[in-house]
Amino acid sequence: MSAQKPILLYTWRTPNGRRVHVFLEELKAAYGTGVIDFDIELIDLDKNIQKQDWFIKLNPNGRIPVIVDRKRDNFVVFETAAILLYLQQFYDKDNKFSFDKDTEPNDYNEALQWMFFAHGGVAPMQFEATYFNKFTSEVVPYAQKRYIGETERLYGVLEIRLASRDWLAGPGRGKYSIADISVLPWVKFHDFTGIASLDKWPRVKAWAARADEKAAFQAALAL
Amino acid sequence: MSAQKPILLYTWRTPNGRRVHVFLEELKAAYGTGVIDFDIELIDLDKNIQKQDWFIKLNPNGRIPVIVDRKRDNFVVFETAAILLYLQQFYDKDNKFSFDKDTEPNDYNEALQWMFFAHGGVAPMQFEATYFNKFTSEVVPYAQKRYIGETERLYGVLEIRLASRDWLAGPGRGKYSIADISVLPWVKFHDFTGIASLDKWPRVKAWAARADEKAAFQAALAL
Repeated sequence: MSAQKPILLYTWRTPNGRRVHVFLEELKAAYGTGVIDFDIELIDLDKNIQKQDWFIKLNPNGRIPVIVDRKRDNFVVFETAAILLYLQQFYDKDNKFSFDKDTEPNDYNEALQWMFFAHGGVAPMQFEATYFNKFTSEVVPYAQKRYIGETERLYGVLEIRLASRDWLAGPGRGKYSIADISVLPWVKFHDFTGIASLDKWPRVKAWAARADEKAAFQAALAL
Repeated sequence: MSAQKPILLYTWRTPNGRRVHVFLEELKAAYGTGVIDFDIELIDLDKNIQKQDWFIKLNPNGRIPVIVDRKRDNFVVFETAAILLYLQQFYDKDNKFSFDKDTEPNDYNEALQWMFFAHGGVAPMQFEATYFNKFTSEVVPYAQKRYIGETERLYGVLEIRLASRDWLAGPGRGKYSIADISVLPWVKFHDFTGIASLDKWPRVKAWAARADEKAAFQAALAL
């Protein structure tokens, strides 16, 4: 019997699911399958699988993504940002995609700031923008406009941050890290949300193009 | 000349501002002013001070709370959850309100999960509920109902979590920590949002009452 892969990822083809999937692909490519590998179990949101009793026991919020770490007594982690920080602690020991809390505390914390900017800002606002522009049968113009506007404003904040850097966190022009991985799958989703182009934010557009050159990033987005 | 207090907190009387203020009051009460003390500078949101150039230099997102750590070369931290984790790292060395990442990794990560449940769930959804029920001149019934419903659903998730515990994270019945401090100022705000009572969630109601017994918690909420 072959050994089980350490991580089981419950996910679906959404930007939040992809934030975790991208990081797992990057870790696997960087460290090798001897250190980290994962199985994917797709949770069909259209069938509301995430609201079934067995899933609520994993995450009482009934949301993907969720991971189970088979190597650590089946420890369960939900909430995208908590999953990224968990994977960083246990599977990115060389901080290839993150920063050392003790020796690089300022870079570490700046990465957190941008992760939470994504988690509490871009993710919920762009989700609402998508909801009101794509998913509702009832047309609610006020809400359609409010959330597209808020998403665009948040892209503008990223544009400020990227004024003199290639990546959101790290010294100098920055280092590709979980801060970028937290936001990019949402930005890449702009067209579906109803924001046709990134031309208004040239640095954001160039940043997304830089990520596109990464094979692991592409692999996760192609799921 | 007396020494400057280490932390400068830019805040306003909002649940997000109070999440940080509560933690600072708790740290000051637990460690003493020789270890941590802070000044408060109120940022009047009604006057849009948070959108002025000097403030955008601190936080390009134009939001409170923000802290400046005068003891660490005026390092700036924005995003509520990042501020709480920063204060934990530098000013809660004994983990009186948190958990040790290395020796208690599971408790540490469970605290993160509930912090981010607050940061990406309760906070943005209850803010939108408050916005559509209190702040807009235009009445948008669909959005009013959507966000009250979503906030109530999230309170229901907390009710599940509190089924066999007093606090959101920690072994046994849990320990009062930054996980609780992340959510409670929003739950305490329920009446203003338009959720008249917590009676539907008796464990959430009892949990909020437990926090009310804490002097530091009360002090911050009275600002």
